[in-house]
Amino acid sequence: MIRVGIVGGTGYTGAELLRLLVGHPAVSITTITSRNEAGVRVSELFPQLRGRLDIVFTEPDEGRLADCDLVFFATPNGTAMRMVPGLLATGVRVIDLAADFRLKDSDEWERWYGMPHACSELLATEAVYGLPELHRAEIRNARLVANPGCYPTAVTLGFLPLLEGGMVDPGWLVADAKSGVSGAGRKAEVGLLMAEVGESFKAYAVDGHRHLPEIVQNLSPFAGDGLHLTFVPHLLPMVRGIEATLYARLRETGRDLQALFEARYRGEPFVDLMPGGASPDTRSVRGSNLCRLSVAEPMGRGTVVVQSVIDNLVKGAAGQAVQNMNLMFGLDECTALHGVALVP
Amino acid sequence: MIRVGIVGGTGYTGAELLRLLVGHPAVSITTITSRNEAGVRVSELFPQLRGRLDIVFTEPDEGRLADCDLVFFATPNGTAMRMVPGLLATGVRVIDLAADFRLKDSDEWERWYGMPHACSELLATEAVYGLPELHRAEIRNARLVANPGCYPTAVTLGFLPLLEGGMVDPGWLVADAKSGVSGAGRKAEVGLLMAEVGESFKAYAVDGHRHLPEIVQNLSPFAGDGLHLTFVPHLLPMVRGIEATLYARLRETGRDLQALFEARYRGEPFVDLMPGGASPDTRSVRGSNLCRLSVAEPMGRGTVVVQSVIDNLVKGAAGQAVQNMNLMFGLDECTALHGVALVP
Amino acid sequence: MIRVGIVGGTGYTGAELLRLLVGHPAVSITTITSRNEAGVRVSELFPQLRGRLDIVFTEPDEGRLADCDLVFFATPNGTAMRMVPGLLATGVRVIDLAADFRLKDSDEWERWYGMPHACSELLATEAVYGLPELHRAEIRNARLVANPGCYPTAVTLGFLPLLEGGMVDPGWLVADAKSGVSGAGRKAEVGLLMAEVGESFKAYAVDGHRHLPEIVQNLSPFAGDGLHLTFVPHLLPMVRGIEATLYARLRETGRDLQALFEARYRGEPFVDLMPGGASPDTRSVRGSNLCRLSVAEPMGRGTVVVQSVIDNLVKGAAGQAVQNMNLMFGLDECTALHGVALVP
Amino acid sequence: MIRVGIVGGTGYTGAELLRLLVGHPAVSITTITSRNEAGVRVSELFPQLRGRLDIVFTEPDEGRLADCDLVFFATPNGTAMRMVPGLLATGVRVIDLAADFRLKDSDEWERWYGMPHACSELLATEAVYGLPELHRAEIRNARLVANPGCYPTAVTLGFLPLLEGGMVDPGWLVADAKSGVSGAGRKAEVGLLMAEVGESFKAYAVDGHRHLPEIVQNLSPFAGDGLHLTFVPHLLPMVRGIEATLYARLRETGRDLQALFEARYRGEPFVDLMPGGASPDTRSVRGSNLCRLSVAEPMGRGTVVVQSVIDNLVKGAAGQAVQNMNLMFGLDECTALHGVALVP
Repeated sequence: MIRVGIVGGTGYTGAELLRLLVGHPAVSITTITSRNEAGVRVSELFPQLRGRLDIVFTEPDEGRLADCDLVFFATPNGTAMRMVPGLLATGVRVIDLAADFRLKDSDEWERWYGMPHACSELLATEAVYGLPELHRAEIRNARLVANPGCYPTAVTLGFLPLLEGGMVDPGWLVADAKSGVSGAGRKAEVGLLMAEVGESFKAYAVDGHRHLPEIVQNLSPFAGDGLHLTFVPHLLPMVRGIEATLYARLRETGRDLQALFEARYRGEPFVDLMPGGASPDTRSVRGSNLCRLSVAEPMGRGTVVVQSVIDNLVKGAAGQAVQNMNLMFGLDECTALHGVALVP
Repeated sequence: MIRVGIVGGTGYTGAELLRLLVGHPAVSITTITSRNEAGVRVSELFPQLRGRLDIVFTEPDEGRLADCDLVFFATPNGTAMRMVPGLLATGVRVIDLAADFRLKDSDEWERWYGMPHACSELLATEAVYGLPELHRAEIRNARLVANPGCYPTAVTLGFLPLLEGGMVDPGWLVADAKSGVSGAGRKAEVGLLMAEVGESFKAYAVDGHRHLPEIVQNLSPFAGDGLHLTFVPHLLPMVRGIEATLYARLRETGRDLQALFEARYRGEPFVDLMPGGASPDTRSVRGSNLCRLSVAEPMGRGTVVVQSVIDNLVKGAAGQAVQNMNLMFGLDECTALHGVALVP
Repeated sequence: MIRVGIVGGTGYTGAELLRLLVGHPAVSITTITSRNEAGVRVSELFPQLRGRLDIVFTEPDEGRLADCDLVFFATPNGTAMRMVPGLLATGVRVIDLAADFRLKDSDEWERWYGMPHACSELLATEAVYGLPELHRAEIRNARLVANPGCYPTAVTLGFLPLLEGGMVDPGWLVADAKSGVSGAGRKAEVGLLMAEVGESFKAYAVDGHRHLPEIVQNLSPFAGDGLHLTFVPHLLPMVRGIEATLYARLRETGRDLQALFEARYRGEPFVDLMPGGASPDTRSVRGSNLCRLSVAEPMGRGTVVVQSVIDNLVKGAAGQAVQNMNLMFGLDECTALHGVALVP
Repeated sequence: MIRVGIVGGTGYTGAELLRLLVGHPAVSITTITSRNEAGVRVSELFPQLRGRLDIVFTEPDEGRLADCDLVFFATPNGTAMRMVPGLLATGVRVIDLAADFRLKDSDEWERWYGMPHACSELLATEAVYGLPELHRAEIRNARLVANPGCYPTAVTLGFLPLLEGGMVDPGWLVADAKSGVSGAGRKAEVGLLMAEVGESFKAYAVDGHRHLPEIVQNLSPFAGDGLHLTFVPHLLPMVRGIEATLYARLRETGRDLQALFEARYRGEPFVDLMPGGASPDTRSVRGSNLCRLSVAEPMGRGTVVVQSVIDNLVKGAAGQAVQNMNLMFGLDECTALHGVALVP
């Protein structure tokens, strides 16, 4: 059994990790920490786990964490970077679901996240960006995995075949992305109240969202110079799900984009391409670890439109983290990730 | 492997059965029928099943169904009763998720359902009402199980300990029940459009809902004469979940109702009693087969209030049907029903 | 023009008051206060008022308020009671939309609200409970109006004809009430996040809600001894609207309840009785000041079921406050309250 | 008083027209037709109008319509074109809220709408496209107004200043638009059930939506040759509201786009530009006739992003129709359109 610890298990990402891990046959959750909820039963905060997980939140304690084989960080940005060096030194492997290790360039990281990085030397050398469809081999051997952001997962997987294949002009890409409110986390903020965001819709962070440099980092290797991406996120009046509609200009019209995408993702257990002409809906992946894609060239006029949907808490967070764990520990990549999406 | 057939698999109940059964280690789905969708891949109608179920809807065909060990009917009321006698005669066992076999009294059935019953002789003798918490032993040996309605499941489990224990006056019971819209089925009706039922709430069928006689039948054995239940269903602006708030007058104030409920449901794998003072929310059972209850006597003033939540498509339909199948075929009752509720 | 001040105008009740008052031909909003937002344009916090209201939140200032003809308090409980005596002394009239003046009995008030009352002498003598359907004459002459709570408005109007008419046993009344989330106010609380309350439903405050004594106070005069009401509120996954389903035992079966309700509310501009057999939905009063009712005796079996819907922010708060203002200042009671509900 | 008739008043557009017109001081609704609901009281179908409109749906009858000063068509596409020539001949003026008269080019119309046009001679000569911000003068004198589509209203008003000002390359425009479900109409279709579209999100009509040629027709005069627009609509899990996020490449970076938009829409009563850096949300226009815009050049990198929100049933349909009526009959353009948006 893999002894697993979770730091910061009181948010939506932590709860989703628990949902997946209690069904994982090779995992034993040995410790889960929360400063605010220390002493409280996990199943008191999350009644859906009553009868399934009988442990108590504890204060973060490096001793107990050092006893784990793997520690997940489901903490706010800036927490993991302070604890990870110590854990790695004791041989514990780490998956960080926050953003602390997602960018290779520490200056860029500090600019977007507005704080100094506590262990920037790990960024370029140690941390592996945990998108299996791009870095499966490195993930298997990683000691430290930076679990991708939700938007970057959906957007990267959608643009990837086009850029790898040199199909589009990288100089003008548009990603119009929409997320359910669980993506904003379990924070007491007026702006996330149901009375504020229910029955309404709007864009946010138009002038620059932290996930932009992450997407750019993913795609740049395939874009040559001059990748220019405009990324606008929006807040959906629903709980779970991301849809990203991606636009790019084709270098050549009339190419078989369906075949291109099929070839790229053949054999990928968690990427599914819809048949031509069909649009994926977010509910078709709700609760599942799939990224479901479609690709089209509307009216054959030279613009490609990719639709990409994920569950922001699964493929966009906890599910991808479990997928990474499976890879790191030599398990079947799909273990505990077989659940069919909950529809309707 | 249990060879399973599904008649009428294009509604929400059918889809939910498929979600649960594709994860069942002892089941092989050999046939699924639909007059309207014959020839269509199941995964085309239900994209969430892409890659998980590779079969095609067929015309209902008694020959293919007779090859099954078990046939689920997920059809409108009035369909199963025409096919069940033939299937039973060939040795196939049946679980009907519609209402055809739920009432013992055929006159009552015909009055509430507005049609003659095609095989009323089966009602009193053959059909077992599939609420395991009441009829587990009979279900194990049943050839024909009438899977309970969604409201009756939530309301019966909530009132049961009180009536069995003789705690309340059966002469004035109130069940104020609320259901998500998936309970109304996948039917093209204006009244179920999101633009009609979104952001709104109302009661319906105040003058008498078909689930009333079913609840009365369940509770009457424990009520002596004079059971009087007022049952008012309401439509919630959400997709899944039923909450029923039940009211009764206690014969004696100050009894330990918490202990009563705990004792009644100890060992029941799919009934969970919340700690005193806590209220269950429907999301805590979303996608799961649990009925979660709480019981209180507000301000100690002689009225008992029970709250009962289920997922109308799981414990209220497909999950309970799988639970019944597990019992009928001697499997662990919980097989394929381990999924943790999807929260948030 | 009536010079109007609003204290605490940053919540949903305040915003709704502004929506109604900017369309009121006899009102000039001269001051609106907020400690947190002092200096901020109202239309910056509430973009829906851009171009319609060009004033700035100010610190509460008794001098400026003393210049008003009428001050609305849209503050948390416990604020108005500290400022009202001073304002009354300067001749300003007051409508408090919070609970400070709703109960006549100061001991009861202090027990339910958990603080000493700052001017309890006003409760029994000065404050008029602002439900026009009960106290229209007193409201006209009031200097201080206690605007009713949202649940008490819906529940009182529903039970009133039955109790006034002596139709039901007051010893066992049930009010099962459901409210949209805007009723909980614009507060940064995890429990009100869309990711918490969206797509879910539950009861709360089962052991006693502050609106219970208010309803009891309204109905007791018509109940003789022994009014016993069980009141259970629930939280709906939507923004606006309250539905209360009320249950009582008829003293006599088969009475013409429809006629009783019609007679009671004939001429009331803001109470509408649905035709027999129809159920009101909350959206039919969204944004409007109506309370819409229906009454039925299901299957003629001795239990009466009343359905009552209001918009919690209009008839349940700001709209009723404007109705009271119109009465207090001798205007047509319906001024500025003519808007048709927004459907769908 | 303007004698107004409405043909096809049972859909959402018809209901919204009624909501606005019952509050219009210069309008008398003399007839409203519906084949399906003939003989039914309008307030029975739309309870929100109880007490406000006491008329009955009638069969369409050209005689009664010929008595009107103005007839609104709120019918499916293809109906108005059969009745309009006759009405115009009798001197009745017409506003068609469907698409029959929106395109100037009848071949284009027949290609997109899949039927022959019954009076194509009216398209280029008689019909005025009713977007006041573009064609106010012609609307005043029009006998036949083609009320714009919902998406075209939001998208056209957003792109207009950029194209009029020659600011952007017209050769690659992207409009990513999202609509609440009321935009799809009050039709009994499975795909519009709450259980289908609630808590989910997806694109549709990616390969070409009928509103595309309408937008292109609006913008082409300002684009010179080679306007290329990719327009992808999406379905939001909410009832009312459209948001369109528009992308274009600036010919020159660093221009004062805020000033450009302010200048273009100064004096327009129903277009509101948000301050720089702010994003409009759909709820801020819910129930109101406003189009609220913002414009930005994210990170100064040469791409302009416009956000445009409307209420699809008001500025996107019935409200704009009333605005057009006001213009046609020499009234204040804002009559009956003063309502503040319903927030929250």
